[in-house]
Amino acid sequence: MKESLDFIYKEQKELGKFGGIASLLGWDQMTYMPSAGGEERSDQLSLISRLAHERVISDDFYHHITRLNEQHTYETLGKKDQMVVKRLLDDVEKSRKIPSSFVEKMSKTTTLAYMAWQEAKTQNKYKHFAPHLEKVIGLQREYCDYMRLPGHPYNSLLDDYEEGMTVAKLQTEFSFLKPKLVELLQKITASKRYEKQQELSIKADKIKQQEISMFLFQKLGLTHDKTRLDESAHPFTTTIGDDDVRITTNYNHDNPLFSFFSTVHEAGHALYELGLPQNELKDTVLSDTPSLGLHESQSRFWENMIGRSEPFWSYFYPVFKKTYPDELRLMDPITWYRFINQVKPSLIRVEADELTYCLHVILRFELELLLIEGKVTVTELPSVWNQKMNEYLSVVPQTDQEGVLQDMHWSGGDFGYFPTYAIGTIYAAQLYYQLTKEHPKITNEIGWGEFSTTLQWLRTHIHCHGRTLTADEIIKNTCGEGLNANVFVTYLKDKYYQLYDLS
Amino acid sequence: MKESLDFIYKEQKELGKFGGIASLLGWDQMTYMPSAGGEERSDQLSLISRLAHERVISDDFYHHITRLNEQHTYETLGKKDQMVVKRLLDDVEKSRKIPSSFVEKMSKTTTLAYMAWQEAKTQNKYKHFAPHLEKVIGLQREYCDYMRLPGHPYNSLLDDYEEGMTVAKLQTEFSFLKPKLVELLQKITASKRYEKQQELSIKADKIKQQEISMFLFQKLGLTHDKTRLDESAHPFTTTIGDDDVRITTNYNHDNPLFSFFSTVHEAGHALYELGLPQNELKDTVLSDTPSLGLHESQSRFWENMIGRSEPFWSYFYPVFKKTYPDELRLMDPITWYRFINQVKPSLIRVEADELTYCLHVILRFELELLLIEGKVTVTELPSVWNQKMNEYLSVVPQTDQEGVLQDMHWSGGDFGYFPTYAIGTIYAAQLYYQLTKEHPKITNEIGWGEFSTTLQWLRTHIHCHGRTLTADEIIKNTCGEGLNANVFVTYLKDKYYQLYDLS
Repeated sequence: MKESLDFIYKEQKELGKFGGIASLLGWDQMTYMPSAGGEERSDQLSLISRLAHERVISDDFYHHITRLNEQHTYETLGKKDQMVVKRLLDDVEKSRKIPSSFVEKMSKTTTLAYMAWQEAKTQNKYKHFAPHLEKVIGLQREYCDYMRLPGHPYNSLLDDYEEGMTVAKLQTEFSFLKPKLVELLQKITASKRYEKQQELSIKADKIKQQEISMFLFQKLGLTHDKTRLDESAHPFTTTIGDDDVRITTNYNHDNPLFSFFSTVHEAGHALYELGLPQNELKDTVLSDTPSLGLHESQSRFWENMIGRSEPFWSYFYPVFKKTYPDELRLMDPITWYRFINQVKPSLIRVEADELTYCLHVILRFELELLLIEGKVTVTELPSVWNQKMNEYLSVVPQTDQEGVLQDMHWSGGDFGYFPTYAIGTIYAAQLYYQLTKEHPKITNEIGWGEFSTTLQWLRTHIHCHGRTLTADEIIKNTCGEGLNANVFVTYLKDKYYQLYDLS
Repeated sequence: MKESLDFIYKEQKELGKFGGIASLLGWDQMTYMPSAGGEERSDQLSLISRLAHERVISDDFYHHITRLNEQHTYETLGKKDQMVVKRLLDDVEKSRKIPSSFVEKMSKTTTLAYMAWQEAKTQNKYKHFAPHLEKVIGLQREYCDYMRLPGHPYNSLLDDYEEGMTVAKLQTEFSFLKPKLVELLQKITASKRYEKQQELSIKADKIKQQEISMFLFQKLGLTHDKTRLDESAHPFTTTIGDDDVRITTNYNHDNPLFSFFSTVHEAGHALYELGLPQNELKDTVLSDTPSLGLHESQSRFWENMIGRSEPFWSYFYPVFKKTYPDELRLMDPITWYRFINQVKPSLIRVEADELTYCLHVILRFELELLLIEGKVTVTELPSVWNQKMNEYLSVVPQTDQEGVLQDMHWSGGDFGYFPTYAIGTIYAAQLYYQLTKEHPKITNEIGWGEFSTTLQWLRTHIHCHGRTLTADEIIKNTCGEGLNANVFVTYLKDKYYQLYDLS
């Protein structure tokens, strides 16, 4: 037993190291790597992920885990060891369901699909991408066949990102949420304020944006001994070690708000990663997030519930105005607050406002289901996409570049991933509701630019649990109920009724 | 045979990947890693080096190499395969001589010794470091016992850095070189010019230093698609992939020449790495340097033979003056050229001028020999150090911080490494002599800030050979003779007789 325990803890620790190394390879690729280094980098990443995968599915590892899981042994284990064994067994059995040949096929297919997508997007030629997408979808179905979770085949895809989530549960929430969002959106677009709403163009050089991002970084509680803020084409957060979590942003000259909000968003991810258990759970499978939805709840919480709130801007408006005195010259704080919360149905998810964002996500979820079920073919996909865009957002892409080709996720085979964006957004609203209930004066603190109570609350309610509980359990323990889109809808109504003078 | 060939080529390729990954981990540690990431980074590096070492000494690998090396098989191999097999067999047999327990003991001992050295240096307490050094030296002797190269035990240490080099050969060169250097130094320090020589203090902000380093970087032929220039406490070059070679420098406010010359030095290393064979030798043991001395010959060539030469500064003086107009206001080009070539015996090797540099190196070599031979004890070491400093350079450290504790090499167990600094310096002079013989007008080109002929010459004579030849063979083929300190002495005499008006 001692031998098996030693083995599985050593193995978890080394798997953690592989993960950190892969993260560094990826971080460098996106930030500082000279362009010609790409080919070799891809080989280096493959090598590390292959070595890690071999460890996960090795017979030795499985043997030790199953030995510890035998009833008479299991009963003698401490509580932590029991949790570790259960989690590991689930993870490893899942990985062992997938033949190595499939992993290889998937990797090759998505590499080609990604290249085809890039070309297709540049040239606006969906046809060029379609046969690759066809293959990717075929492989998704094959994957579901290996996994065979109960219920809808898509459950097997969902489960990789959001353990325990099902199509049935999501459909319940989304079928409630979608019409509410569409209805609110229509009210807004029919309002006088919307009619008068003007686009404001702020231009800002990189240095100014960097200054303000760095100020934010520190204000939100990130410190330079454990975190960095760098630049990359697409903002991301990555964990290289327990005490080395890095975020990136992108400085867009014509839209300094992009770097601002993406810094807040990624800071939310980083604060979570840094808050994961470092005690006796360090270097185990339990010192991790239970789901991407929960992870996204942290970034969306900081980005939206805090970063787009009135109290937040009562602190940040003067800071912003100091950095951009000319641009904000004619705007009072309330005009500015309205401005950064403008609703505007648009084509691209990553540019969407807080209200329309989830409609983009629901659209993807519905399309993924239809594709997996075979009810929509790859050929039909662009027109179904456009129909749904029109139906939900009243905008129609003029080209596939702006539509079905807009992002790379499908080329990479990431089916089942999109819903986590909406799950996280809903969780974020639920958490904020609960926080204000427990700390009715929290908005005062936020208005002073003081976030420590908020962070501490997230630390003790969310972060510290790591993967000892599921996302659902953590949210239930914290908020008294699981995923509930109604809380999100109430939040949106309160916010936008006020902003757009609706009644 | 096909199976064995496939195996050894695949293994070399993956070992190359491990090497690149380790380089990235190291590069990041020295440049961008948040400070708290250090502990985990050290674990990640250990993991990668252990995995790579296990591959090198694996029975499988050895089995395939020896099978290919059997006469009847070997004879059927192509020339490249034959070279690869020979080199691999040598490398692997060498690695297999060392028990894994020893590797581990060495790693633990040097980790502790490094920490002790840091503390000892900060507090100027040699006694604190001495017992650790004692252990390190014991392990060096043990290493020599495993290796058992012919002749002096120290040959086994030398060979790791400079294949084929021996104590006997070095003693021949150094016993010629040392008195010549001391004699020339004494002539200089007795000269009128030396007496009048003034220290010039230039201060420069980082931005200016960065600008000029970046200009240099490009002028010397480095390009941003394959190279980067970053900042670290100690300048270094590292190869992360065949097309991803990075250099660093350090910006010292009180000495902008440090970043200037270190950039030239590291650029020399990087140009060599980028010039290593990329053809059919790519991803083999032959696409590497045969020795650190040869590597250092490239950095010292660019730093000294080019970077401290009169033609080089006839191009760079105006550039420098444009960046530092105030500082260079009162200096004409020849005064500036004299200034950057000032001889000044000093305590610290890394700050030494071109003439005294090798005396520091010879001192270390002699001390290492005495320590390995047991003729000087660890307790006696500081006083022997000081005696020799006085004898060769006429300066005596006032503290051990400036003396025996000045750098970390010994704490890391890098015995046998110092001589490569002198070997590289001598080779550099030989190469420059040969270059000017073959291209008598090369100084004109250099004077125009044009280095392509020089680089091309190094590419075809040195870089392209990789490890298909030994350093000695490469130098012999290029210069008509092996290591010859006399060429270096002649170069120094020519240069310093003119600079100090000697006769």
